[in-house]
Amino acid sequence: MCGTEHATHISKRSSSASTALEAKENGIKKKPSSESVINLDHGDPTMFESYWWRMGDKCTITIPGWQSLSYFSDVGNLCWFLEPELANEIRRLHCFVGNAAVENRHIVVGTGSTQLFQAALYALSPPDAPAPVNVVAAAPYYSSYPAMTDYLRSGLYRWAGDAYAFDKDEPYIELVTSPNNPDGFTREAVVLNRGGGKLVHDLVYYWPQYTPITSPADHDLMLFTVSKSTGHAGTRIGWALVKDKEVAKKMTKFIELNTIGVSKDSQLRAAKILQVVSDSCRHSGSGCESENFFEYGRRIMTERWEQLRDVISHKDLFRLPEYPLEFCKFAGEFTEAHPAFAWLKSKEEIEDCERFLKGYKILTRSGKHFGVDTKHVRVSMLDREDTFHLLLERLSAMQGHEREE
Amino acid sequence: MCGTEHATHISKRSSSASTALEAKENGIKKKPSSESVINLDHGDPTMFESYWWRMGDKCTITIPGWQSLSYFSDVGNLCWFLEPELANEIRRLHCFVGNAAVENRHIVVGTGSTQLFQAALYALSPPDAPAPVNVVAAAPYYSSYPAMTDYLRSGLYRWAGDAYAFDKDEPYIELVTSPNNPDGFTREAVVLNRGGGKLVHDLVYYWPQYTPITSPADHDLMLFTVSKSTGHAGTRIGWALVKDKEVAKKMTKFIELNTIGVSKDSQLRAAKILQVVSDSCRHSGSGCESENFFEYGRRIMTERWEQLRDVISHKDLFRLPEYPLEFCKFAGEFTEAHPAFAWLKSKEEIEDCERFLKGYKILTRSGKHFGVDTKHVRVSMLDREDTFHLLLERLSAMQGHEREE
Repeated sequence: MCGTEHATHISKRSSSASTALEAKENGIKKKPSSESVINLDHGDPTMFESYWWRMGDKCTITIPGWQSLSYFSDVGNLCWFLEPELANEIRRLHCFVGNAAVENRHIVVGTGSTQLFQAALYALSPPDAPAPVNVVAAAPYYSSYPAMTDYLRSGLYRWAGDAYAFDKDEPYIELVTSPNNPDGFTREAVVLNRGGGKLVHDLVYYWPQYTPITSPADHDLMLFTVSKSTGHAGTRIGWALVKDKEVAKKMTKFIELNTIGVSKDSQLRAAKILQVVSDSCRHSGSGCESENFFEYGRRIMTERWEQLRDVISHKDLFRLPEYPLEFCKFAGEFTEAHPAFAWLKSKEEIEDCERFLKGYKILTRSGKHFGVDTKHVRVSMLDREDTFHLLLERLSAMQGHEREE
Repeated sequence: MCGTEHATHISKRSSSASTALEAKENGIKKKPSSESVINLDHGDPTMFESYWWRMGDKCTITIPGWQSLSYFSDVGNLCWFLEPELANEIRRLHCFVGNAAVENRHIVVGTGSTQLFQAALYALSPPDAPAPVNVVAAAPYYSSYPAMTDYLRSGLYRWAGDAYAFDKDEPYIELVTSPNNPDGFTREAVVLNRGGGKLVHDLVYYWPQYTPITSPADHDLMLFTVSKSTGHAGTRIGWALVKDKEVAKKMTKFIELNTIGVSKDSQLRAAKILQVVSDSCRHSGSGCESENFFEYGRRIMTERWEQLRDVISHKDLFRLPEYPLEFCKFAGEFTEAHPAFAWLKSKEEIEDCERFLKGYKILTRSGKHFGVDTKHVRVSMLDREDTFHLLLERLSAMQGHEREE
């Protein structure tokens, strides 16, 4: 195949300023049919595309060829590969939203929060311990934690399972995911600290579209990502807010050894996106052009949860968690959580809920991956509108016991 | 600091189409003075900025806010996070340059070749072996290999040092870096295969600006990166060409667990850059606008090596390697290598060459990090023009024994 220009200009998408119209056409092409299998196994946040289409060029970035050749972004900074404008926009957005304390914190940027999770384990593990440190999280826990902890069979850390069951008198790292993935509940650490425990707070869903913002989180090590805050999962940008300088240094070292820094292009893009989101927070009202990003997110998530609860309530097949009303300081009102995932529990007669739903061409993730039973499944609430409506249709069409009104 | 818009619009760089003039001004700002410490410890490829400035808008990409929200790029592909147009441009460029066989290869994209190196170790390590597999490379070897192999104390693989000294009857992975970092020589595997050996070919410098392209490399697992081919290190995009489907799958799994894919923004940018480079290969001549990227690179590297050899030859302080003339099929002529690093060896009276050069405000990397002695240092040849000229000036000013002509 060499010697001919077989691949010349096969695609020009990256070089041309694509239009919102093209995007909508792409969206239409991807529209699932009534026969399609719908994949709600992943938390792919494509729901947010519709907001960004409406923003048009407000969020467009242009990167010339000579930009970002160097490995270095800010040689004077502890995190030498962090673009200063991303750091500024991260601080600014947290200030607007009020979801995390940023003062006297080091920011470490990562290739998504996944890389930062591993950087945190590396930084918090004693380097010379005779045995790997125990890594625990309260069940149901994020299904990727066990594999992300153990895939390299590290001598520094090892997955030790459900934090509720951890009773060893050994050093440990507890992962506190709040709101929790998969079930959406607000969480605190559960292991009673016997002196050797360290905490990683995975707060990637602590944003107003998912949960009431009750106060700025103020923990030693907190993880966030644009994937869940703005929906830009393909950009692979996460950040950690870290109190302790030495921990931040070790996390930076991990990322240096793992990937020699983080894409500058995506950092610059994330900076622009966060800037537009912060700017939108200054607008009130729900006019098409100026809608506050989080108000948009809250509106869609509230609608989806109402629709889902309505469909579920008419069948005697599944139960959904109930969330308390809490005062959201960002919204200025009492709200309940509208999590990124529905944590469905099947009633008695369905033993394997994932398999049951697969029979209706709905792919979900079984509770067994989250450290609990197969009566539970996690269902993404963040897919595109068409897919979500297919989910509602298929749930409506199931042969359950019609509940007596 | 929260509550006020302290950070509003501190920088607009990412949102505006910066001009080549601004870039030049930035370059001028960064110009080192005669008092500056010059850092040639890293292989930061800023030399290539001047080419990309001259290309102007040819290589500019524009990314609208609604693009690349999904984690997925190509769900039907083994490497599901690989952007199809990047795959096309990678194949097209290798075809033009003739430096690697691409037929019947799987492409796995990574956050730089560093991530792919680790993905390769993960994929090639027996999952159930009682002891970690030995990872070896012939000294002098790339200084980051030991740390990148051992920082997580993996139970799958461990650094086992110089491949020349490896004589265990145990499974091993040999890293073959060709042209070699630090010394620029063409290499082949050195461990005699006793059945349990696997090879990773790190070919990130196998491009015409550095070395004669004698034939398309045709190995099981080959690593490349834009950092060294086009100079875009900040983009963090590398790729692996992999023969075996199961190995490519396991590498993909590693990257899924490590970072859930690779920045789409940077992949799209890399695709555009490679496209422009391939397009430039169709032009001959050295006209400013149409210059072939690799001819440009060869010209600059040849000039720099001539200047460096000239300065070194007038002092009796250092020696440089000599490279054989070989026929470069890309250039259509006999050429010698002009590596990305100068591998300097000091004469007898200088025991610690790194320390000696530091006395002249030249930071380099000692041979001890490459598995050899402190009489050697590695010096980057890829910095900006001003920095390179300061290197020449400082080497010229040293109190050596003037060689008799």
